[in-house]
Amino acid sequence: MRIELEPTLYQSFEDISNPANVAPRVAALRKKLDENGLDAFLIPLADAHRGESLPNSEQRLAYITGFTGSAGIAIVAKDKAALFVDGRYTIQGPAQTDTNIFEVLKTPDDKLNDWITQNLPAGAKLGFDPWLHTPDEVKNLNKIPEENCTLVPGNNLVDAIWGDRPQPPKGEVELLGPNRAGVSREDKLIYLQKTLNEEGADNLVLTLPDSINWLFNIRGRDVPNTPVVLSFAIVPKTGKPSLFVDREKLNATQMDQLGAVLNIVPADQFAAALKTLGANKAKIWVDPTSCPNAVLEILTKGGANLIKKTDPNMLPKAIKNAAELAGMREAHRLDGIAMAQFLCWFDLHCETGILTEIDIATSLEAFRRKEKTLVDISFETISGSGPNGAIVHYRVTNSSNRKLVPGELMLVDSGGQYLSGTTDITRTMFTGSVTKEQKDRNTRVLKGMIAITVLQFLPNTTGAHLDILARQFLWQIGLNYNHGTGHGVGAFLSVHEGPASISPLNNVKLEKGMILSNEPGFYLEGEYGIRIENLIHIVDSEISDGWLAFETLTLAPIDTRLIEVNMLTEIERDWLNAYHTRVLKEIGPSLEGDQLAWLEKATAAI
Amino acid sequence: MRIELEPTLYQSFEDISNPANVAPRVAALRKKLDENGLDAFLIPLADAHRGESLPNSEQRLAYITGFTGSAGIAIVAKDKAALFVDGRYTIQGPAQTDTNIFEVLKTPDDKLNDWITQNLPAGAKLGFDPWLHTPDEVKNLNKIPEENCTLVPGNNLVDAIWGDRPQPPKGEVELLGPNRAGVSREDKLIYLQKTLNEEGADNLVLTLPDSINWLFNIRGRDVPNTPVVLSFAIVPKTGKPSLFVDREKLNATQMDQLGAVLNIVPADQFAAALKTLGANKAKIWVDPTSCPNAVLEILTKGGANLIKKTDPNMLPKAIKNAAELAGMREAHRLDGIAMAQFLCWFDLHCETGILTEIDIATSLEAFRRKEKTLVDISFETISGSGPNGAIVHYRVTNSSNRKLVPGELMLVDSGGQYLSGTTDITRTMFTGSVTKEQKDRNTRVLKGMIAITVLQFLPNTTGAHLDILARQFLWQIGLNYNHGTGHGVGAFLSVHEGPASISPLNNVKLEKGMILSNEPGFYLEGEYGIRIENLIHIVDSEISDGWLAFETLTLAPIDTRLIEVNMLTEIERDWLNAYHTRVLKEIGPSLEGDQLAWLEKATAAI
Repeated sequence: MRIELEPTLYQSFEDISNPANVAPRVAALRKKLDENGLDAFLIPLADAHRGESLPNSEQRLAYITGFTGSAGIAIVAKDKAALFVDGRYTIQGPAQTDTNIFEVLKTPDDKLNDWITQNLPAGAKLGFDPWLHTPDEVKNLNKIPEENCTLVPGNNLVDAIWGDRPQPPKGEVELLGPNRAGVSREDKLIYLQKTLNEEGADNLVLTLPDSINWLFNIRGRDVPNTPVVLSFAIVPKTGKPSLFVDREKLNATQMDQLGAVLNIVPADQFAAALKTLGANKAKIWVDPTSCPNAVLEILTKGGANLIKKTDPNMLPKAIKNAAELAGMREAHRLDGIAMAQFLCWFDLHCETGILTEIDIATSLEAFRRKEKTLVDISFETISGSGPNGAIVHYRVTNSSNRKLVPGELMLVDSGGQYLSGTTDITRTMFTGSVTKEQKDRNTRVLKGMIAITVLQFLPNTTGAHLDILARQFLWQIGLNYNHGTGHGVGAFLSVHEGPASISPLNNVKLEKGMILSNEPGFYLEGEYGIRIENLIHIVDSEISDGWLAFETLTLAPIDTRLIEVNMLTEIERDWLNAYHTRVLKEIGPSLEGDQLAWLEKATAAI
Repeated sequence: MRIELEPTLYQSFEDISNPANVAPRVAALRKKLDENGLDAFLIPLADAHRGESLPNSEQRLAYITGFTGSAGIAIVAKDKAALFVDGRYTIQGPAQTDTNIFEVLKTPDDKLNDWITQNLPAGAKLGFDPWLHTPDEVKNLNKIPEENCTLVPGNNLVDAIWGDRPQPPKGEVELLGPNRAGVSREDKLIYLQKTLNEEGADNLVLTLPDSINWLFNIRGRDVPNTPVVLSFAIVPKTGKPSLFVDREKLNATQMDQLGAVLNIVPADQFAAALKTLGANKAKIWVDPTSCPNAVLEILTKGGANLIKKTDPNMLPKAIKNAAELAGMREAHRLDGIAMAQFLCWFDLHCETGILTEIDIATSLEAFRRKEKTLVDISFETISGSGPNGAIVHYRVTNSSNRKLVPGELMLVDSGGQYLSGTTDITRTMFTGSVTKEQKDRNTRVLKGMIAITVLQFLPNTTGAHLDILARQFLWQIGLNYNHGTGHGVGAFLSVHEGPASISPLNNVKLEKGMILSNEPGFYLEGEYGIRIENLIHIVDSEISDGWLAFETLTLAPIDTRLIEVNMLTEIERDWLNAYHTRVLKEIGPSLEGDQLAWLEKATAAI
């Protein structure tokens, strides 16, 4: 029942791990421990860039443990080993690794520091790769008393045994013109160097891919889901910045164009450049939450005076300019066309009882791929039928894949990377019948989403203030959802970005131009999951000078068959009807025949 | 039209200042500047205790400037002088002082530090009384570069010229028994000393009156509105604490009872005790936001190792025990009886056109004073008719007093100190007619108040999260109020207390037992003011284990003639009707005749 497909899928559903590999690889690693006089070695799921996605060449955790989840850390000692995963992966973790070798522990209840204290011999030497841990992480490890264990930075022992390690990616680079970037790299640099001067910093070291790609108006194809060029950068308070990148990724024209603004330096010269940066006690700005500890060590050894502060690109990057917003609107129009086709297809087939979660994810990707400016999906599609919908970060694999039973709720959270922008949308779909309880819960989730959407608010309002509006209708009956209400979204960049979010803990002021997701949900373990997600962006409110409001970017019907209309206020019903009118107006002209008829029905007023 | 009164009123409406006094007093103070080799002297509105109210003996700002507002600071230099007041007092400030002598400036736009830098000669010596400024305040003054001015702590020059300075208060002390305090002073001490040991503190210095009075289960009559004994205390990590207090306030029985738990030391020995406290580098806990800078100086000079942290009694004091809650409920029942009588009286007379704001405040106090356990009002009644209702902290005086014009809104914010507890209530009253706009605004304010009241919430929720619920209906139409939504309230203590509040900036977790005000409002400058305030306290929610909810303490009708019933949801209408049913049930039995008939009508279902 899949629609006709392009030969390659962005998403894979393979269970790529083989627990049988674990024993020989751990044995090889332990040999390296002995050779290096170490008692244990840390294997985090991270590279030096700390972007949202890792290239295959950096998948050390999966290589050693078999575990392919999106977060985790392992430690291999001489006769013990542990894999720490969070609550999402307590089933997948043990299933993918060899549990005779790795004890799988659940964070945050189980703590790496405790494990180290309890399992390593007194005075143990713990090896780690300083390019894969941030200063904040190292600081936390250093809380272990020295009599228990000493940290030993050094070469990565996994790389030493990884015979068939993939090459680092050499994805093509594209330079964004003014019509896509909105602000030239020269102007961004002027603004940034002004900030450096205000802060008294002589140089800024950048290691986050989305920060560097945003600053220089470049994009790449190095990692899945996020269109970035992996690279480092050093920005002096005056003069040309240096971009440390594999020069093979750039063609001659690009070298010329970029070269006018910055020095293009081979990536392997980054460490050497850091060594001399601290001369004369220069003040160097680094972000201790994301830069590799190696960067800090090299700078400090070179005499630098460190300014430890958040990457200064984070806030300006979050505030989208007119060209970025125009691109994001276009991306959402294109995504809306794909979503309408997908939802129409789903509606037609969901009651057959033969659709699997993989069929559904695959078909959605196929509809998206009909648009030639799609370059990737923005994250692995969450395609959760019935009880799998209740697993917030569910990723379907061949082994978890199940058939949708008509009458179950179907939750699909997905997004695309179009040349024009990044999308992220969740819809929960009717499949033939719905219980009174599900309808009630879905309506409360929708009311919460609308409460955020229609809000007019004052400057100095933060996500921590807004969050309760999305939860209030669930809280009325003692229910909640265990995730934030929304995250920042990049413009043809990371689908998750800071600094703002809609969460009880986020104290960043919401500003005009920011794009956020708005995705309350409700999950009944073992039964069903509901989430409704639109992207919204902050605009001037028409209500009064200085007030702010949200504009919705996402354009796709919200399933009205799951709504208890009597529970909606007039404001809520009016919003939904106006939204559906807009969806039909903007998406309808791109559809025809049955699909258009379906959209007309799906967007009919309630 | 005032009702029959007791001979004395707690509240005074006098404009007690006389601008003619300013010139000779400032001249005398300037003579002292010369004698002491100083260029200027600071006169804050503060005593060493930083409680909510000051005794007359500490009213130095009013003595020098004539200004009697509730916040401000003055500086007198050799040929210039300035009085800094906030936005509430930009009219009252200039009216009460001699503006030929004092330039009246508005904070926070005008800054004391800027004035000092711009008006004092280079290298000026700025005198101040270190008992009247906190370390945080001194730290802020020290931001002025040394070449501009040096801070010189010393004796208070105002005291040196204040011939008829009142004696410090010698109010009677009462000891609270277990039925009122709920927890014995011995048990509170065990808990506090456990905290000191956990923190590694050898001694704790307490200077806040409500902290000390709460800890030792004592109350006093030293200052208006807040029933505290002014005193200091030192609590060692083990053994008896010392209470520094004017021993004349205590009778022999009280000396014996308190003496069993603590050392009663004459107040003037406090400084001497601090001198030796730091011996052997002892660790001394002080609260830098409230303790006098003199305390810090003496401790430091004595070799102390300071732990600068919030007063550890703040949080346990805010979490009321069963006896305190029972007392607060009783106080609100008593206050509800007075409020019902007052509102009935007001309803009968408001359309005569002869009631003044002072008549209204005076009558309300008279109704409260019929209850013999009333010992004070908890703050000066805000009695604002028509446009005066829009002044958030309005205090009526003989010169500001105006007649209520029937048809205007009348706002009364008031409270009582009963032996059983402290109340704080605001009602906005109908006076014969109401505009459509006023009804709309009042209904939005009420909806906001109800949104907080009916909320069921999870642990880790803070006032910053809740605040938007109270504002949301005003925000819908681009309106707001410029104050927090609610503050903590003490149990027969300060009517304003920390650490929790309902405000966009408060990140203290809300806990079971806390009492807060819930008082959204709306103010149209020059036209009218609306505020509806109940006290609420946090209880376990019945909805689900671990959830929290609010119970309303305040018992008085909310004027239904100001409500646009169509704007209420079913939940809101149900809440209001249930609340009124409860008010009638709890207050009705204490009324009879016309007053009972009035209450029945006022609490009738809508």
